[in-house]
This record gives sequence, C-alpha cells and structure tokens, in this order.
Amino acid sequence: MALDSIFKFFAPKDRKFFPLFDDQATNLVKIASVMHELVNTMDQNKRKELEKEIEDLEHVCDQCAHKIYLELSGSFITPFDREDIHRLTSSIDEIADYIHGASKRIAMYKVTEFTPAIIKLAELIHQSTIELQRAINELKNIRNIRNITDACVRINSIENHADDIYDTAVASLFDNEKDAINLIKQKEILSALETATDMAEDVANVLESILVKIS
Amino acid sequence: MALDSIFKFFAPKDRKFFPLFDDQATNLVKIASVMHELVNTMDQNKRKELEKEIEDLEHVCDQCAHKIYLELSGSFITPFDREDIHRLTSSIDEIADYIHGASKRIAMYKVTEFTPAIIKLAELIHQSTIELQRAINELKNIRNIRNITDACVRINSIENHADDIYDTAVASLFDNEKDAINLIKQKEILSALETATDMAEDVANVLESILVKIS
Amino acid sequence: MALDSIFKFFAPKDRKFFPLFDDQATNLVKIASVMHELVNTMDQNKRKELEKEIEDLEHVCDQCAHKIYLELSGSFITPFDREDIHRLTSSIDEIADYIHGASKRIAMYKVTEFTPAIIKLAELIHQSTIELQRAINELKNIRNIRNITDACVRINSIENHADDIYDTAVASLFDNEKDAINLIKQKEILSALETATDMAEDVANVLESILVKIS
Repeated sequence: MALDSIFKFFAPKDRKFFPLFDDQATNLVKIASVMHELVNTMDQNKRKELEKEIEDLEHVCDQCAHKIYLELSGSFITPFDREDIHRLTSSIDEIADYIHGASKRIAMYKVTEFTPAIIKLAELIHQSTIELQRAINELKNIRNIRNITDACVRINSIENHADDIYDTAVASLFDNEKDAINLIKQKEILSALETATDMAEDVANVLESILVKIS
Repeated sequence: MALDSIFKFFAPKDRKFFPLFDDQATNLVKIASVMHELVNTMDQNKRKELEKEIEDLEHVCDQCAHKIYLELSGSFITPFDREDIHRLTSSIDEIADYIHGASKRIAMYKVTEFTPAIIKLAELIHQSTIELQRAINELKNIRNIRNITDACVRINSIENHADDIYDTAVASLFDNEKDAINLIKQKEILSALETATDMAEDVANVLESILVKIS
Repeated sequence: MALDSIFKFFAPKDRKFFPLFDDQATNLVKIASVMHELVNTMDQNKRKELEKEIEDLEHVCDQCAHKIYLELSGSFITPFDREDIHRLTSSIDEIADYIHGASKRIAMYKVTEFTPAIIKLAELIHQSTIELQRAINELKNIRNIRNITDACVRINSIENHADDIYDTAVASLFDNEKDAINLIKQKEILSALETATDMAEDVANVLESILVKIS
C-alpha cells in the first residue's frame, strides 16, 4: 500500500476529533457569555435563570470532554499526541468548571451587587474563550499557523490583564472591607474568575506545543 | 514463539500490578472508614486515637502509591496504559490525602461538634471507596465489565449527592454563621470532604477509559 | 551503522536538555533565596525591591519551563521519558509559582511583620531548592546515583519538617488570632509557603522514578 493510501485510510478516524474539539469550544464560549451576562444583570429572577443555564452548560461541557476522552481511548490514530489531546480537553473543561464555580458561589453567598473588578474579569474570560475557539477552529487545517499563535498571544495578554485586576481588587478588599465574611465572599468569586483565565493560558500553552510538533 | 506463549511469558510481570492495586484500594477503604467513625465519635480521647490512625493510614496509602510508581518505572509490560495506571494511582492517593486533610483540620481547628452535613459527607466518602474497591478488584479478570461500570455509575451518583450536600451546607453557613473564624473552619472541613468525592469521580473516569481500551 | 555510531549521532540532541534543566534549577534557587531574604528584611523600601525581584524571577522561571516544553515538543530523542521531563519541569515551575504567590500575598495584604513560622518555612524552601539543584546537576552524568537519592531523602525530610511547622502555626493562629481578616492573611501566606515544599517533594518523586528507569 502506498504511503498516500495509508493516509487516506487513516484520515477518517483521525478527523473524528475536530468536530468534538469545535463542540467543546462552542459550549465554552456559551458558558462564558452567560457568565458575562449574569454579572451585568440586576434582575434577581433573570439571574436565577442564568445561573441555571450556567449549571446546564457545565454539564454539556463535561459531556463534550467525556466524548473526547472516550474517542481517545478507542482510537489508535489521533491527529496530535494523545497526551496533548488529553491536556487540551481537560484544560478547556477546567475553564468551564471555574466559571461554574464562580456562578455557584454567587448563588450560595447571595451576592447581589457586582464590583467593577468582577464585571471586568467576566468580560476578559469571555474574550479569552472567543480567542480559544478561533484557535481551535484553525487546528483542523493547519494552513495558517499564524492565526493560532496570534490567538495564543492575545490569550496570554488577557491573562496578564486579569492578573492585574485581581491583584488590585484583592489588595483593595483587604484595605477597605472590614467585614471578614463579605471579604471571603468577594475574594472567592474574584479568585474563581481569575483562575478561569489562568486555565485559558494553559490551553494556549498546549496549543503552542502542538504547533511545535506539527510545524 | 506462538502468540499464546508470548502472553504466558509476559503474564507474570503483568500481574504484579493487581495485588498492588488491591492493597491501595483496601487501605483507602480503611482510611475512609476511620474518618466515618471519627465524625461519629463524641469521646475526645477516642478521637485523638482515630486522628492518629488516619495519619498512619495516609502514610500507608502513600507507600502503596509509591510502590506502584516504582513498579511502573521498572516494568516494560503493564496491564493497562502507563498513563492510566499513573492517573488511577494518583487519584486514589488524592482521596486519601483529602480525607487526611479533613482530619488534620478537625484537629488543628479544635472542632468538637460535627454538623449533619459533615457526618453525611464522611458516610458518602466511605460508600464511594467501597464501590472503588469493588471496581478495582474486578480489574484483574475483566470477565464482568458490567460490575465495573455499575460501580462507576454509583460513584458518580454519590459525587452528585455530595455536591448537593456541600452546596446546601455552605449556603447555610453564610446565612447563619456570624463568626467568620467558625465559618472558615466549617467551610474548610466541608470542602476537604467534598473534594475527596470529586477525586473518587476522577478514579471512575480513569476506570472508564481503561475499559474502553480493553473492550 | 554500528550501535555505537547511532548513539554518537543522537547524543547532541539528547544533551540539549541538561543545560536547560540546570538553568531552571539555578533560577529556582535564586527566587527561593530572595524570598528568604524578603522575610528577614525590616526595611520597607528594600522589601519592595525584593518583591519586584521575585516577580521578575518568576517570569524567568516561566521562560525556562517554556523552553524545555518547546525543546520537548521538537525533539524525537529525549534523555528520559517525555512524561517525566514534563512532570519534572512543571513541578519545578510550581515551586517558583508558590514562592511568587506568597510574595504577592505579602504585598497585597500589606503584611509588615513575619512570624517565626513564616521565616522558618522560607528557610526550608531555600534549603529544599539547593538540594533540588544538586540532584538536577547530577542528572547529566548518572555515575553517582547515590547523590541524587540522598538529595531526594533530604527534600522529603524538609517537607515533613515544613508540614509540622505549618500545622503548629495554623493551630496556634486559630487559638490566638481573634481578628478573622488577620487570620486569613497569615494562613494564606503560610499555606503558599508550605505548598512550595510539597511541590519540591513532587520533584523528588519524579527524580526517583527517572532513576528507577535508568538504573
């Protein structure tokens, strides 16, 4: 069998992964967008709906990751190294987990007002997931590696921005908030949101190491 | 050499892992059972003993994991993928770590009364480790895959139950506990216990991906 | 081609990793040493400088890790298993992250006095990184495996010591500190420092599994 036919033979198996990656990325953007809407919503009933929507989307994200793990276990041929696929999928899943974690805390702690830092972090997470989706969509035809590296650079710069906002907000909490229980509430929500942007940076790192191998 | 003889040749090396997995699972059930006893014990002296026992069992669990890692490093042939064995062992070890973490906090924070949520979480962890042990015992003769998947389903449902109990307990803490230091103590113990059930779900996920590969 | 020539052929690629490991270890010792200096400095301006230095060194450590990941992705031949190199590098990077995390908290929380426990933990981290550097330097010519295992034993014993100091300090905080916000500040700094020694133990574990494979 010529090398050419071998590739044709394996290609279909190989290509099963890309729609799964795209699905996962699409649902990640969705959950980040609902989170962004949540922190900009004043109406309590509407908020309850959005919190429920985040919870449902987190389950959908879990299922997306699960499908990829099963596909990975059942496939002999994979488009990238198995470990990279595992890391890519689990890091994306963790972004969704931290968004869900922030939303759960907002509900559990009955937080009714959002500080500018929380609103800004939710916006940055949303932007970061849009960049991620762009990069992941490009994976399937690696003609334009530059598009992926550019998205990774923007994800890293968003993470740095989120870091600064988190540090300033936490320092100001310790300066001004005299009620320890309020301080804990605010700090934990900020921390879940900031960690979501860290996880996006992890995804960018995995993407970069995939690019090095195939280029 | 016929394929059949090759398998016979490799089998002994291969089978070294199963008693190690069983050992690790047995000690995990033990530590979870002592934790369950601890939160149901009123006598302070008896509690000190149980805390000491948990500490000792955590060391034993560490050694079990360590033996598996060494066996893994020294073996060319492994019954499952090396990465799966590594993940299986480290996730089981983390369950023991979080149980130990909860016990350490109970001691350090001088907690003397346990809420129904803490008692229920300790019970769920114990149940979860018994399911894990069952699944791990079945690994050595994969005749009845169904037994393993059934145990995994039950572990996932225990984790969901633990999640609900944790969320309700933390929301109620923030509603009712006005002493911030008490709130921190209770929240951290709940959180260590709830994370132990998350880790059990991780083990179930690894088991599932092992099954996909060998079935 | 004789086996001998094959080794000569691959050796140069293979050996690219060792200077990168040494660089990472050298910068880790530096950041730990500045942290040790920081907690022993009373002058506030000097402290600001040291905090800035830790931040810069954390970026350098990040770049060291990044270089190793890229080298790993681009290399067909590696001196140890790819997964071990990945774990080695990421665990070392996490030590630097936790040192940086402790320093950031000291700045954000405007902590002006350091307890004996904090000073001792910073000293233990510094010692632990020196042992790590010693072990990593030895990796390149595995003539004296004993030097590496001895360093690993000392790292484990430092971690146990750090654990005891952390437990005693946290128990004493909950006994004596009545201001919940101060308690949170102190506890989080102690916790970041203690976790740095845990990560050093992780590095020692990876080193041990590398030794088992090559001996």
